[in-house]
Amino acid sequence: MAHIVIIGGGFAGLDAARALARSAAQVTLIDRRNHHVFQPLLYQVATAGLSPGDIASPIRWILRRQRNLRVLLGDVQRIEPAEKRVILDGGDIVTYDALILAAGLTHSYFGHEDWAARAPGLKTLDDALEMRRRVLMAFEEAEREVDPDRQRRLLTFAIIGGGPTGVELAGALAEIARKGLRSEFDQVDPASARIVLIEGGPTILSTFPESLRAAARRSLKRLGVEVHEGTRVTDIDEQGVQAGDTRVEAATVLWAAGVRAIDLGSCFPGQLERDGRVKVRPDLSVEGFPEVFVAGDMASFTHQTGKPLPGVAQAAKQLGTHAARNADRRLRGDATQPFRYRDPGNLATIGRNSAIADFGFFRLSGYAGWLFWLFLHIAFLIGFRNRLSVMLQWATSYVTYQRSVRLITGEATAARSVTDDPGRPLDRPTSS
Amino acid sequence: MAHIVIIGGGFAGLDAARALARSAAQVTLIDRRNHHVFQPLLYQVATAGLSPGDIASPIRWILRRQRNLRVLLGDVQRIEPAEKRVILDGGDIVTYDALILAAGLTHSYFGHEDWAARAPGLKTLDDALEMRRRVLMAFEEAEREVDPDRQRRLLTFAIIGGGPTGVELAGALAEIARKGLRSEFDQVDPASARIVLIEGGPTILSTFPESLRAAARRSLKRLGVEVHEGTRVTDIDEQGVQAGDTRVEAATVLWAAGVRAIDLGSCFPGQLERDGRVKVRPDLSVEGFPEVFVAGDMASFTHQTGKPLPGVAQAAKQLGTHAARNADRRLRGDATQPFRYRDPGNLATIGRNSAIADFGFFRLSGYAGWLFWLFLHIAFLIGFRNRLSVMLQWATSYVTYQRSVRLITGEATAARSVTDDPGRPLDRPTSS
Repeated sequence: MAHIVIIGGGFAGLDAARALARSAAQVTLIDRRNHHVFQPLLYQVATAGLSPGDIASPIRWILRRQRNLRVLLGDVQRIEPAEKRVILDGGDIVTYDALILAAGLTHSYFGHEDWAARAPGLKTLDDALEMRRRVLMAFEEAEREVDPDRQRRLLTFAIIGGGPTGVELAGALAEIARKGLRSEFDQVDPASARIVLIEGGPTILSTFPESLRAAARRSLKRLGVEVHEGTRVTDIDEQGVQAGDTRVEAATVLWAAGVRAIDLGSCFPGQLERDGRVKVRPDLSVEGFPEVFVAGDMASFTHQTGKPLPGVAQAAKQLGTHAARNADRRLRGDATQPFRYRDPGNLATIGRNSAIADFGFFRLSGYAGWLFWLFLHIAFLIGFRNRLSVMLQWATSYVTYQRSVRLITGEATAARSVTDDPGRPLDRPTSS
Repeated sequence: MAHIVIIGGGFAGLDAARALARSAAQVTLIDRRNHHVFQPLLYQVATAGLSPGDIASPIRWILRRQRNLRVLLGDVQRIEPAEKRVILDGGDIVTYDALILAAGLTHSYFGHEDWAARAPGLKTLDDALEMRRRVLMAFEEAEREVDPDRQRRLLTFAIIGGGPTGVELAGALAEIARKGLRSEFDQVDPASARIVLIEGGPTILSTFPESLRAAARRSLKRLGVEVHEGTRVTDIDEQGVQAGDTRVEAATVLWAAGVRAIDLGSCFPGQLERDGRVKVRPDLSVEGFPEVFVAGDMASFTHQTGKPLPGVAQAAKQLGTHAARNADRRLRGDATQPFRYRDPGNLATIGRNSAIADFGFFRLSGYAGWLFWLFLHIAFLIGFRNRLSVMLQWATSYVTYQRSVRLITGEATAARSVTDDPGRPLDRPTSS
């Protein structure tokens, strides 16, 4: 029996698997995590609005009814396309008749890999929990800090990258600081936190039309987010961010700027883009390897418009489905079909009550855009329970301004010390 | 103004803080985590039934309305009772007029601290997430394993300690294996998992009457849990557990046996029990330090019955409230009062539909006990949102047998390899 292997359980891999539900082939889906993540809401976990369980489900569970499918938890080390096989951690070998490569993206620091420790990115649940930990710890450390300069630095958050993720993070952070933490601290006023969004390109949200960008800038301004456009980061150090002449003293730096493909494309050396994505032919296969298809953010597909596809869930899903159908066609001896992207539109949210949506024939901003965003995201969340739980959490936090999952986990003990003058007394009078 | 310092934000510390809401003193509560955990449900997080956010809330948020209170995130390094001060991480100093010590317990391996890595205990959210990761990874690794002996070992779970936590863990694990994971795996049958509960003392649930213990044993048997009583663990190695002549080959070992007090009592050397708890006088103060009170599981209080108090939430809460009132009395120049424990009863649950409850004047077991347990635990959960969310999750998982939070997080990549024969092919036929 023919064997189709899918690498990756993101939007592309999952839809590829689903598209093969009635295939005569056996299907194996390999992912290095046991869960699928609803990426568009990852920033909500990073800002303590939702629990990991609300936006993630086990891949096994999602695909449990598909009888021709096997799910393997494994970390693919490399692909050997000449031998048509995949090598996992521990050396285990999986051979294939057709391969769908959809391993997705990771952070890229444009050659400054040393920035990674200071400015974590947001691709996985663990990334999101690390961001949450850093954000919440900054407020806690500020509360214990006696030096005003250091306190100021602890209450400054720099977000690098003004795409949808950066804008959504900035908006959510501004809200948690201005509203969610108010009245819980004694020595600091969280509402005074400084949130700085730094974009290296000429404009934030570059994939949106200017009218919607202007609406987004107004929303960010209302939330008190400082926006720097055309400001390229040149250094990130222990104290803050240098962007040309602009200096931002910030204890917490979040990375939403660069991405590159997971390092598996190197098995197809002639077909690599500079960012690690793999060039595909019109039918999504790789030049020289007609049984290998690439889908999701890993695919560099430019045949339709001469430009790359947008890095959104809808594109990944369409690519996954199409790659799977072509793989199946090929194994049956049929001709593969060229891919056509149908653009469903573009969305970003900026805190409560404000979002922008661009669907070509109609555009929304402000409250209407936000309601639309809310509806779409809940509708597409995987699993009925998740949908209910997310609605419940959002309803509560909408009414109360509370971020409900403000838990600092992931380190056995609490505070990295921020002081270099041990022995200082913390016995300041309590305000009452 | 007088200053009362509380160390610990568990049941005792939280109730101590609340009891001081109308005190004229200033109050500082110090915890090394930012959240209070509803400990009786921690095993539900460890077995993927609930999210961390369902059973934990930020201490700041819980106490946000208390105006005379300051919350500090800090790791207390030591107490200097002669100087009436507390030293935090980083060397920060907090002085007090009265101290309430309620830092709680940690795991104890009876001198075998090397067992800790192989057999994690369950006291914090991070502990619970680590248990969850190990349990879920064991099934994933079994699915990839080709050697039948190793597969068997991966599907064997040893739980050491037959108190309420051990019994609850064993019951929940049996359920997830028998029902929750069924039909999602291809090479292994999760329902065939072996769950072994090992108790060193003569009986499980030693604080319950024998009739209820018998009911619990029947429930465990029905769930297919092997119970070994009077079987003391003598070694834990990479492959399993040795308990006298009994050998259990188990990849996953969970520790629910020994506890000892957090190591702060050593600042009161004459008053230490062997397990690190601090002997208290009838008014909960420490001999020689009338301004220091001990509450919660750290307090060794034997004045009422000659025996220690049970390590349950109700005892901790009563101790916390009483210690706080006595601290306040003392600072006002009033006489302190002796503590009297009012026993509210004893509860444990064994999977779905079965629990035992002992309230002296009435005893429940089976389904009635379980409904009662459900009601009490939801009623006492902190925060309205948590209560709703927990009810929702439980209702769903009751109907569907699904454990909803089966996420493996906390490690960047997936599988530690379980094979020592790299290069083996994983291309077994898929059952269909």
